Amino acid sequence: MNVVMVDVSGKPEVFREATATGLIRLKPETVKLIKECKIAKGEPLYTAKIAGILAAKETSALIPLCHPLPLTNVEVEVRIAGKSGVEVTATVKTKAQTGVEMEALTATTVGLLTVWDMVKQYEKDQAGQYPHTAMESIRVVKKVKEGVTGERKRKKA
Amino acid sequence: MNVVMVDVSGKPEVFREATATGLIRLKPETVKLIKECKIAKGEPLYTAKIAGILAAKETSALIPLCHPLPLTNVEVEVRIAGKSGVEVTATVKTKAQTGVEMEALTATTVGLLTVWDMVKQYEKDQAGQYPHTAMESIRVVKKVKEGVTGERKRKKA
Amino acid sequence: MNVVMVDVSGKPEVFREATATGLIRLKPETVKLIKECKIAKGEPLYTAKIAGILAAKETSALIPLCHPLPLTNVEVEVRIAGKSGVEVTATVKTKAQTGVEMEALTATTVGLLTVWDMVKQYEKDQAGQYPHTAMESIRVVKKVKEGVTGERKRKKA
Amino acid sequence: MNVVMVDVSGKPEVFREATATGLIRLKPETVKLIKECKIAKGEPLYTAKIAGILAAKETSALIPLCHPLPLTNVEVEVRIAGKSGVEVTATVKTKAQTGVEMEALTATTVGLLTVWDMVKQYEKDQAGQYPHTAMESIRVVKKVKEGVTGERKRKKA
Amino acid sequence: MNVVMVDVSGKPEVFREATATGLIRLKPETVKLIKECKIAKGEPLYTAKIAGILAAKETSALIPLCHPLPLTNVEVEVRIAGKSGVEVTATVKTKAQTGVEMEALTATTVGLLTVWDMVKQYEKDQAGQYPHTAMESIRVVKKVKEGVTGERKRKKA
Amino acid sequence: MNVVMVDVSGKPEVFREATATGLIRLKPETVKLIKECKIAKGEPLYTAKIAGILAAKETSALIPLCHPLPLTNVEVEVRIAGKSGVEVTATVKTKAQTGVEMEALTATTVGLLTVWDMVKQYEKDQAGQYPHTAMESIRVVKKVKEGVTGERKRKKA
Repeated sequence: MNVVMVDVSGKPEVFREATATGLIRLKPETVKLIKECKIAKGEPLYTAKIAGILAAKETSALIPLCHPLPLTNVEVEVRIAGKSGVEVTATVKTKAQTGVEMEALTATTVGLLTVWDMVKQYEKDQAGQYPHTAMESIRVVKKVKEGVTGERKRKKA
Repeated sequence: MNVVMVDVSGKPEVFREATATGLIRLKPETVKLIKECKIAKGEPLYTAKIAGILAAKETSALIPLCHPLPLTNVEVEVRIAGKSGVEVTATVKTKAQTGVEMEALTATTVGLLTVWDMVKQYEKDQAGQYPHTAMESIRVVKKVKEGVTGERKRKKA
Repeated sequence: MNVVMVDVSGKPEVFREATATGLIRLKPETVKLIKECKIAKGEPLYTAKIAGILAAKETSALIPLCHPLPLTNVEVEVRIAGKSGVEVTATVKTKAQTGVEMEALTATTVGLLTVWDMVKQYEKDQAGQYPHTAMESIRVVKKVKEGVTGERKRKKA
Repeated sequence: MNVVMVDVSGKPEVFREATATGLIRLKPETVKLIKECKIAKGEPLYTAKIAGILAAKETSALIPLCHPLPLTNVEVEVRIAGKSGVEVTATVKTKAQTGVEMEALTATTVGLLTVWDMVKQYEKDQAGQYPHTAMESIRVVKKVKEGVTGERKRKKA
Repeated sequence: MNVVMVDVSGKPEVFREATATGLIRLKPETVKLIKECKIAKGEPLYTAKIAGILAAKETSALIPLCHPLPLTNVEVEVRIAGKSGVEVTATVKTKAQTGVEMEALTATTVGLLTVWDMVKQYEKDQAGQYPHTAMESIRVVKKVKEGVTGERKRKKA
Repeated sequence: MNVVMVDVSGKPEVFREATATGLIRLKPETVKLIKECKIAKGEPLYTAKIAGILAAKETSALIPLCHPLPLTNVEVEVRIAGKSGVEVTATVKTKAQTGVEMEALTATTVGLLTVWDMVKQYEKDQAGQYPHTAMESIRVVKKVKEGVTGERKRKKA
C-alpha cells in the first residue's frame, strides 16, 4: 500500500485563494454570554481568530500530504450566527503550485475548537457531558486559482 | 479584556478520558473508491488515524488556553459510515488535573481533514469547487473523570 | 566542550511559580492609537496575551537546555505603561522538578514581540527604520518554590 | 474587534535584510566565568547562536500575524559586552514580500534567553531570585529592502 | 567559535532532488510478523511512510543550519529487505537555492525510527534490551541539481 | 487495518533510562578538519549535542505512536571515533509509564544528521554526491527500568 504526496514540481506558481466556513452550535445562554462579554476565559471570537491564523500556518505539519506553502494572507472572521451558533470563516491566499483549501479548512476548524474550549464550562451538563455542543457544516465555499474562480452558495446559519 | 487559562495547580491528578466523533460527507463514488482501495494518494482511513493521533499530542500548541498534558493513550478509529460518509472517533486518556475533550476533538477534526485532503481530487467539481464535501456533527460523546462517568447516546451516521 | 541539561531525575515534584516582566518603548502617538483601539492590525494587548500563553508552552522547544514541564497555569497581563510604553507581565505555575522562570521570560518576550509586530507600521520612520522602538528591562520579578518565596521590588515603568 | 494579517499577495518578492540586537546584563562574576569557559551547563555564547538561528525559523509560529518566509540566511553573533553584559546581534535575509525584522528580533531574544538559562545558577541570589539579571535594549538596528537601505547608530553596550 | 548558516541569498532557485536510503536490521521473526500483518501496533511500513513525509517537512526545525525550503514533493518507500531488514528510501524535491539531501536523510531516519517503535515489543530480549536491532547504512544515493545529475550505486540489502 | 498507541494508563510511573549510540563515517580529511576546528559552518560536535537534546524533546511529535513524556534529563555525547568517524551517544531519563529508548534514538540520529549537515561541503565529490558518508550502527546500548537494568556490550567504533 502506497501513500503519495502529489508532485507539484512541474506546476507553475500562480495566485491561489480558498475560503472555508463552519459553525459551532452552542446553548443560547452561552451565545448570550459571548454577546455580553461575560465569558470568564476571555473573548472567544477574537481568540478564535488568532488561533485560526496560527493554525493555517501549521497545516502542512498537521495534514500528512499537504505541501508547505508561503501563505501571503490568512483572514479569519468569527461571528455570532443566530441564537445558538458561532460561525468561523477563513480565507487563505498564496502564490504557489497547489491550492490552499486545506489551510482554510484547518484555520476554520481550529477557530471552532478554540471557541469550544473557551465556552466549555457553560456547555457542560451536570454529568460533565456536552449534549448541545457540536461543530457543523465545515466546508469550502470558494476556491480561486489565478484566472479560474468558483463560488458556492453559502447557506445561512 | 482579559484572557485566562484555568489555573489547575491545586487540582488532583486523576484519570481522565474523553471520546469525540465526527463525520465527513463525501460523494458515494468517492466512498466506493475508498472501499476498493483505489484512492491515488493512499489509504485515507489509516492515514487519518495516524494524523489524528499526532494531532492529539499538538492540542496545547493549537488551542491557546489548553494545558500541556501527558497523554497515556490516543486511539483513533476511522470507518466508512453508510454510502456517503467517513466517521472518525477519537478517545484520549490521561492522568491529569484537567480533562482531555479538546484533545479528542482535535484528533477527530485533524483525522477528518486528512480524509478530505486525501480524496479531494475526487470531490472537486469541474470548477474546482467542493459542493458535496462537508464535515458534520463533530461532538464529544463521552467524558470520564475518575469515579464520574457519563455517556451520551450516539446517533447512527 | 560539553553541554549539559541539569539532571532533575532525583528531585521531588513541588509547586513552582515564576513571574517575569518587561517593557516595550513606543512612540506616544502609537500608544495613543492603542488606547483608542485604532491599530489597523487588531488589538495588540489581547493578541500579546494569547501569543505569550502559547509561547510559554513552547519554551523547552526554544531554549535548548530547558526541561519539558506540565504547566498548570500561564497568566499574561499586558497594559499600557505611561505615555510611551506597554508592559507585559507573565506568571507561570507548575508542579515539577525544576523552576519555570524561563517559561515566564519566554511568555513575556514573545508578548512584547507581538506588540512590536502589531504596531510596527506606526513605529517605522521614513527610511523604514525603528529609531524609537525598544524592548527594555525584561527580568524575573518573583520566583516561588514550595515553601520558599522571594519577591523583588518592581520599578515603576 | 478585528485582527488582520497584512495581505502581501500583490507585493513583489524582493531582497530583504534586517539586523536586531539586544543585551543581557549579568553579574561581573558570571561574565568572568563565561570568559574562562567555566559555565557548568556549557558554552553560552555558542549555544545562544544555535538557539537564535533555530528561533528565527519559528517566528511565524510564535508571532500570530507574521508571514512564513523562506529565509535565505540567519546569522547570530553573541559576544561579551563590557564587564557585565552579553550582546546578541542577529541578521536575517530573505527574498520575500515582507520584511524580516520580527525574525531578527526573535533570534535576538531567544539568543538572550538561552544565555540566561545557561548562567542562571550563577545569577540567583540566596532567595532564588534574580536581582541583577535583565535583558535590555532589544531593538532593530538596520533594515534593508532591495534598493532602500537604512542604518541606525548603535550605542556601545 | 562561530556557527554559520550558508548565505544562499544570491543563488538562483533551481530544481533540486535528493534520494536517501537506510536499513533497519530486525529479527527474522519480526520481519515475518510484518509480512503477515501481525504487528499489534499497526502496519509499520505504511506508518513509516507517513512519519517520513511529515519529518521531511520538519527538517529545518531539527537541523540547526538547514534552510526552510518549499518542498514540492516527498516520496517515502518502505519495503522488506531480505529476511531480516526493512529498507526506507526517501526522495525529496524542491525548487530552491540549496539542496534537499538533509530533508531526504531526515525522512529516511524518521521512517526507520518509526519502524523500530512499532516493532520494538518483538525485538526486546528478556532483559528489555535490543541486541539485534540496528539502523544501518543511511546514506544519500542520488542528488540532482538542475542540469547536473549524479547517482551512486546502491548495494543490495 | 488498525494503528494502536499502547495504552499505558494503568502503568506505574517509574524511573526510566535509555542510551542509544550511532556512528557517522566521514572522509579522514573531514575528521581531521573537525579535530583542527576548521569546519567553516562551525563546531559540529557541539552543535550536534544541542540538536540532539532538542530532538529528544520532539520525539512524540515525530514518531506517531510515542507518548509525550516529561524528560528529566537528556545527555548527548559526540566524539571523534577513529580516523573516519564521529560517534553520537545519547542518554535520556524520565519518570514515566513507558520507556525512553525512542527518545535516545531520536537524539542520536538527529545528532548524526547535524554532523552530516555541518561537514557536507567536505564530503561531496565533484558530482555533488556523497560516496563516503554514511550513518551506521545506530542502536540501543542500555535500557533501564527502575529495579531492572540491562546493558549490552558496545563494540568499539
